[in-house]
Amino acid sequence: MYRTHNCGELRIENVDETVVLSGWVQKIRNLGGMTFVDIRDRYGISQLVFDENVNHNFCTKARELGREYVIKTQGKVIERSNKNPKMPTGDIEILVDELTVLNKSEVPPFTIEDNTDGGDELRMKYRYLDLRRNTVKKNIILRHKMAHEVRNYLDENDFIEIETPVLIKSTPEGARDFVVPSRMNKGEFYALPQSPQVFKQLLMISGFDRYYQIVKCFRDEDLRADRQPEFTQIDCEMSFAEQEDILNMFEGLAKHLFKAIKGIDISYKLLRMTWADAMKYYGSDKPDLRFDMKFVDLSEIVKGKNFKIFDEAEYVGGICAESCAAYSRKQLDALTEFVRRPQIGAKGLVYVKYNEDGSFKSSVDKFYSQDDLKKWADVLSAKPGDLLLILSGKRNKTLTALGQLRLEMGKKLNLIDNNTFVPLWVVDFPLFEWNDDEKRYTAMHHPFTLPKKEDIDLLETNPGEVRANAYDLVINGIEIGGGSIRIHDNEVQQKMFKLLGFSREDAENQFGFLMNAFKYGAPPHGGVAFGFDRWTALFAGIDSIRDVIAFPKNNAGRDVMIDSPSTISDEQLKELGLKVTKSES
Amino acid sequence: MYRTHNCGELRIENVDETVVLSGWVQKIRNLGGMTFVDIRDRYGISQLVFDENVNHNFCTKARELGREYVIKTQGKVIERSNKNPKMPTGDIEILVDELTVLNKSEVPPFTIEDNTDGGDELRMKYRYLDLRRNTVKKNIILRHKMAHEVRNYLDENDFIEIETPVLIKSTPEGARDFVVPSRMNKGEFYALPQSPQVFKQLLMISGFDRYYQIVKCFRDEDLRADRQPEFTQIDCEMSFAEQEDILNMFEGLAKHLFKAIKGIDISYKLLRMTWADAMKYYGSDKPDLRFDMKFVDLSEIVKGKNFKIFDEAEYVGGICAESCAAYSRKQLDALTEFVRRPQIGAKGLVYVKYNEDGSFKSSVDKFYSQDDLKKWADVLSAKPGDLLLILSGKRNKTLTALGQLRLEMGKKLNLIDNNTFVPLWVVDFPLFEWNDDEKRYTAMHHPFTLPKKEDIDLLETNPGEVRANAYDLVINGIEIGGGSIRIHDNEVQQKMFKLLGFSREDAENQFGFLMNAFKYGAPPHGGVAFGFDRWTALFAGIDSIRDVIAFPKNNAGRDVMIDSPSTISDEQLKELGLKVTKSES
Repeated sequence: MYRTHNCGELRIENVDETVVLSGWVQKIRNLGGMTFVDIRDRYGISQLVFDENVNHNFCTKARELGREYVIKTQGKVIERSNKNPKMPTGDIEILVDELTVLNKSEVPPFTIEDNTDGGDELRMKYRYLDLRRNTVKKNIILRHKMAHEVRNYLDENDFIEIETPVLIKSTPEGARDFVVPSRMNKGEFYALPQSPQVFKQLLMISGFDRYYQIVKCFRDEDLRADRQPEFTQIDCEMSFAEQEDILNMFEGLAKHLFKAIKGIDISYKLLRMTWADAMKYYGSDKPDLRFDMKFVDLSEIVKGKNFKIFDEAEYVGGICAESCAAYSRKQLDALTEFVRRPQIGAKGLVYVKYNEDGSFKSSVDKFYSQDDLKKWADVLSAKPGDLLLILSGKRNKTLTALGQLRLEMGKKLNLIDNNTFVPLWVVDFPLFEWNDDEKRYTAMHHPFTLPKKEDIDLLETNPGEVRANAYDLVINGIEIGGGSIRIHDNEVQQKMFKLLGFSREDAENQFGFLMNAFKYGAPPHGGVAFGFDRWTALFAGIDSIRDVIAFPKNNAGRDVMIDSPSTISDEQLKELGLKVTKSES
Repeated sequence: MYRTHNCGELRIENVDETVVLSGWVQKIRNLGGMTFVDIRDRYGISQLVFDENVNHNFCTKARELGREYVIKTQGKVIERSNKNPKMPTGDIEILVDELTVLNKSEVPPFTIEDNTDGGDELRMKYRYLDLRRNTVKKNIILRHKMAHEVRNYLDENDFIEIETPVLIKSTPEGARDFVVPSRMNKGEFYALPQSPQVFKQLLMISGFDRYYQIVKCFRDEDLRADRQPEFTQIDCEMSFAEQEDILNMFEGLAKHLFKAIKGIDISYKLLRMTWADAMKYYGSDKPDLRFDMKFVDLSEIVKGKNFKIFDEAEYVGGICAESCAAYSRKQLDALTEFVRRPQIGAKGLVYVKYNEDGSFKSSVDKFYSQDDLKKWADVLSAKPGDLLLILSGKRNKTLTALGQLRLEMGKKLNLIDNNTFVPLWVVDFPLFEWNDDEKRYTAMHHPFTLPKKEDIDLLETNPGEVRANAYDLVINGIEIGGGSIRIHDNEVQQKMFKLLGFSREDAENQFGFLMNAFKYGAPPHGGVAFGFDRWTALFAGIDSIRDVIAFPKNNAGRDVMIDSPSTISDEQLKELGLKVTKSES
């Protein structure tokens, strides 16, 4: 028997019991005739005492232990004279009378401490040691709890978890597929699913009514920061449900998780904001509402004063940064630099300082009088001491840039509290977005999304204005998930494919089975998918999803621990009927 | 709103309520002025009534409905005059006052009934319709319940579910890997996991203590009947656990599932049988103990009577088939044919009839006296009226053949009750098995299995005799799962690789990271993996795992519904740096 208790559970009530513990050596301290060893396992840390006077040999043996040795120990629980209130086991220690080294350890390449001396690369190579660190371990345990609570909620609401296949069919729409060559059908390939979208719709047609799955999905994308080629989705679908039913059901899931995981009671109904308003007021389809700083449209009141840039702008909008009127030249220049960065792409920034004395100082004083500027200040609800920041240009681009500037100011002014959570639904997304490269509309969500009934007439005349029954759950500026009501009518689906530029043959080839399925009594249905890694990271209070994944890949899609991907044998290639035509130099 | 209730929940208590139901049209019957429509959803079936006298229009509309139409209906719950005690909703019906067709349906290619007229091929092509059939649907729901209960048990026992990666590294040992070409690292490939074995061991080294996962695994094998290229495993691992701890823990899981799913209380401790005994008495490492018919070794008592075949045989063994002495020539010939089939491979069958009058009639009367045969009958505990069936030859081959014959007789004599479950542990598996093709030992379980301490000395001298700390859970002749205590010592692991014929370089290349991990304090650990599809099929009372999988593949590894695998575009191939050298003609 390796243990009677784990290393985190002994308390003052256990005093005088003889216990067996097994775990890792966290720390060794020699104090005169006493040696103290901290023993660690998943559940906690306990202090072992070796008393020179009681057992000399053990003391010698204990002193020979090294960090991360695996030991088994037996002893009597005694009350500590120096209690440690910071440790759950801090009231007691174990006076050891048996010690076995189960396995030695070399000195780890970095310290197994919350603040380690190991860099990213090293920690990834030795991920199994990195996972021993409490800061990483607790994220993985949090992830488990999240999955558990997701299942609890959905099970209680009659959802059935159904596994959909991993070896499916490649479809050119969407992101790039990972493919899997078939040996039994040479020259042919399976694809790994980007999502179980089509299968969950088929399950609705099958009558499963409520489906969910916590499921791996795959996208072969050039990895931007914090993307993983394999990621996990909470994937759900409901039949005989309208948008309202779905929003309520998954608002319930969000509230359940907030309560169960974060201990936060959300008693109010979540805010719902249209996509149009989110863009108009926050320049983002995932607004961070932990702080206000709403945009004000200045397009009208700034015109007609011979300032050409504003006069010609499709849109002029501003935000009010409270108590920033005293910003220095240097600070303002930095903000201008910020909005000019290529990923933001504004041409310049106009500022107006609303001085404490009530006067105005702006970068456009040449064109605008104090009265003009007072009017701007008024519509922006600014007070003396505030700073107005104004961008102009093409509407959509400017809104987005202003959104970035708003977030930057939020950060600078410490308006963003990491312990506050503001969830909301963004609704009424556009059905299509214009792809300027391909000069055509593409589906904003996916080709199965149902247009709003009242916008159906616009499908042919003005597709860009058609709104979809599509919605996103946004928390603190992060898109946690989204979904839509699906088309369940074969004719509407065919029309959508046509609008999206699928030839009849392509549509048939790729989605023929789905369109066929629609002929046999497809119920009205809709659903949602949440980014499980992302949601866990949010609740863990960390920015990167990498640290909520046990064995993540790096930005080049490599697992540096197992050294994958790697070459395969010529024999394997031959069996697959494949030849490598070029390899990375 | 699509519904106030589902189609399975209305009872006599609901009489007089106005309800809204949505679902599929299961059946339409016209009886004089009344039309009855059965409406179906996942939860059940309710009867709708359209009364010609109450509303003529509805009656006409109802008569125009077709099977599998999706409808929404509103009406009043009334008590039936003709109650149907076989239906949970059989006490009531709904007198309809509103009817909407949500979607029409073409006539399905087969009937959506328990006994359908659709063949296998057709049902697979239209799997989404096949899944509507109660017989298939209930298996998928059972699977969900099984997963739910597995999680309940493991969560209660402090196991953490941790996702391991799907894109991993190809290793030539074991079955063939499915591989995934990497676009970002051209010429290199990921592999899909055959099991998360290495990762779960790393998680133990990380200190997660108790891990589980219900996880997809992949094997690119030539598909025998009832194999799937992707299948699901309940994968578990524990640290600081001896074999006894693991058997107890997962015996607990088995009992929990029997209770929760089948309502069967198993209060006894499961039988444990050594692999050696299982082979000796049942000729199988997965004995079906629902009936006895144990082998008796006759090797000694049959020798020395000039019957060359027995005299020269390494092994002679028999079973006693009760009350079969009256078997006809034809029946005996059929049994001989059975054991001679190539997949069984016995040369012939010796029978001894123990006639009701106490005399014996055998196929070897030339060589053996009545007294000789009486002795055989005695050691086989046969009574007058019984039939002895005897095989001989090389020991292992004969045992296996006799095992097949035993199962065949069990079936013929109706000794196998499908409602009885006899689970047992088969323990002490051999560490190695001899591969006659490659003239070398291979790991029977896998290369990480710990040999029994008392057999360690045999590793160098007689590897074939070394027993492993390995165990299988067997229920009714089916291997539900198995596992082992793992090697946690780097030196022992290296020795194993060497014995298995890995060059140091190969071992380093394939498992270097694991061997490296062993250097940093690997705890003693072990685990188990259960075939989730198999276990579900067993509990569903069906033979094929295909019917517990929502979207299975056929024996050629094809999904005939989505028509996958399929060719991919030249552009995709080019991006991957690949060329197809041969395709199936």
